[in-house]
Amino acid sequence: MLNILFEHRSIRKYKDNPVPTEILNSVLEAGIRASNTGNMQAYSLIVTTGSALRKQLWEAHFKQNMVQQAPVHITFCADFNRVSKWCSQREAIPGFDNFLSFFAAAIDALLAAQNVCIAAEANGLGICYLGTATYNADRLIEILNLPQLVVPVTSIVMGYPDEIPGLTDRLPLKGVVHEEVYNDYSDDAIDRIYEEKEALALHQELLKINEKKTLAQIFTDKRYTKKDNMFFSQKYLEILKKQGFMNNI
Amino acid sequence: MLNILFEHRSIRKYKDNPVPTEILNSVLEAGIRASNTGNMQAYSLIVTTGSALRKQLWEAHFKQNMVQQAPVHITFCADFNRVSKWCSQREAIPGFDNFLSFFAAAIDALLAAQNVCIAAEANGLGICYLGTATYNADRLIEILNLPQLVVPVTSIVMGYPDEIPGLTDRLPLKGVVHEEVYNDYSDDAIDRIYEEKEALALHQELLKINEKKTLAQIFTDKRYTKKDNMFFSQKYLEILKKQGFMNNI
Repeated sequence: MLNILFEHRSIRKYKDNPVPTEILNSVLEAGIRASNTGNMQAYSLIVTTGSALRKQLWEAHFKQNMVQQAPVHITFCADFNRVSKWCSQREAIPGFDNFLSFFAAAIDALLAAQNVCIAAEANGLGICYLGTATYNADRLIEILNLPQLVVPVTSIVMGYPDEIPGLTDRLPLKGVVHEEVYNDYSDDAIDRIYEEKEALALHQELLKINEKKTLAQIFTDKRYTKKDNMFFSQKYLEILKKQGFMNNI
Repeated sequence: MLNILFEHRSIRKYKDNPVPTEILNSVLEAGIRASNTGNMQAYSLIVTTGSALRKQLWEAHFKQNMVQQAPVHITFCADFNRVSKWCSQREAIPGFDNFLSFFAAAIDALLAAQNVCIAAEANGLGICYLGTATYNADRLIEILNLPQLVVPVTSIVMGYPDEIPGLTDRLPLKGVVHEEVYNDYSDDAIDRIYEEKEALALHQELLKINEKKTLAQIFTDKRYTKKDNMFFSQKYLEILKKQGFMNNI
């Protein structure tokens, strides 16, 4: 069991085989066993397998290859639409059109997503998260017909792996775990924590390819630029507002 | 393995036994194997076991009994402090003081949290999530000395279970999973999806105790009132701003 967690790698090459329905359903059932807020299950899981829709999703996710290949695409949404409809139908006045409710629903969706991924891997499937779900959430809303109080939080692709990549590196446990309270990082601590990561041949190679002096510069100048982060921050907040989750402001 | 996921229940009564360090470390190691944004691991896990600090955390979490009992308390934080310090020390200009970065870091923290919970359960431990981490995040920031760009996202308590509660109910899979695109809920669909939940003896009993006509009213009038949701929405957004995550606005 623990092996599944320790052997996780994101899969970016998939075989053509579809995922049998009974396996997919078992994986989704495992997903909804995850803890959630007040047992409201304030999420929806949208399972897309049709090629025309998957092509549209692929475009919305910046045309990453694995999105086109993988036979199953799941969009995990924060969803207070269903709960609110239930309330309105039961003489109860729903009050979930606010940021805290969005965030609670996002937590629910993410814990369910991780259960789905682990259950998938336990069934011999591979998965890859798509962080791009928040970048182009507006397109996902259009493609997937999401109503008010439903917002994409994360997406995954799933299928049978056609590669066995190596494990990715992680910072030493002490670099991310704090005992008792937060112990802020000294300059020396930062050097120690990142030493191994920076020395990896893979990352040395990245410096050459990207013509950068430090690995950190690849993150700030190429992958997660301030400009992009600012742009997509505004965009996602506007989407939250448009979908009805910011009525507290 | 899949059993662990299907047999999850939140534990609210704990034995006194401490969690052995080697087991705790293995559980935390499993946590940081979870997928994360660009392998930046934009989270911190704060493991609190000292009784004086745990008492303060118990107060911040509305004095829920299990928080006092459980020997281990873990606060999962979105953390771009460490990444930003690393960047600044490596001639890279960090741009993570915005909402998108907060949300990516929150995703990282939540996927790690779910791995930690599953690994704990695989080791015979019990856990309970504390949704209250977002309610009183300001107190957690004080108690745990969280610097700029660090915000609590969720908390769990952990220890050896002193109860075996029944599985909690879940909505039928079809109630939360959508095929291809979102299929919005008709009135009939809502009735069907909630029928079994509403009929449970446990919930019938709740109606009597709370003197309410419908189960939905318990959620809207008692547990998650609009007034509370609005108040804590404003508060959490102000905390995000204070911790430096809203400079995109």
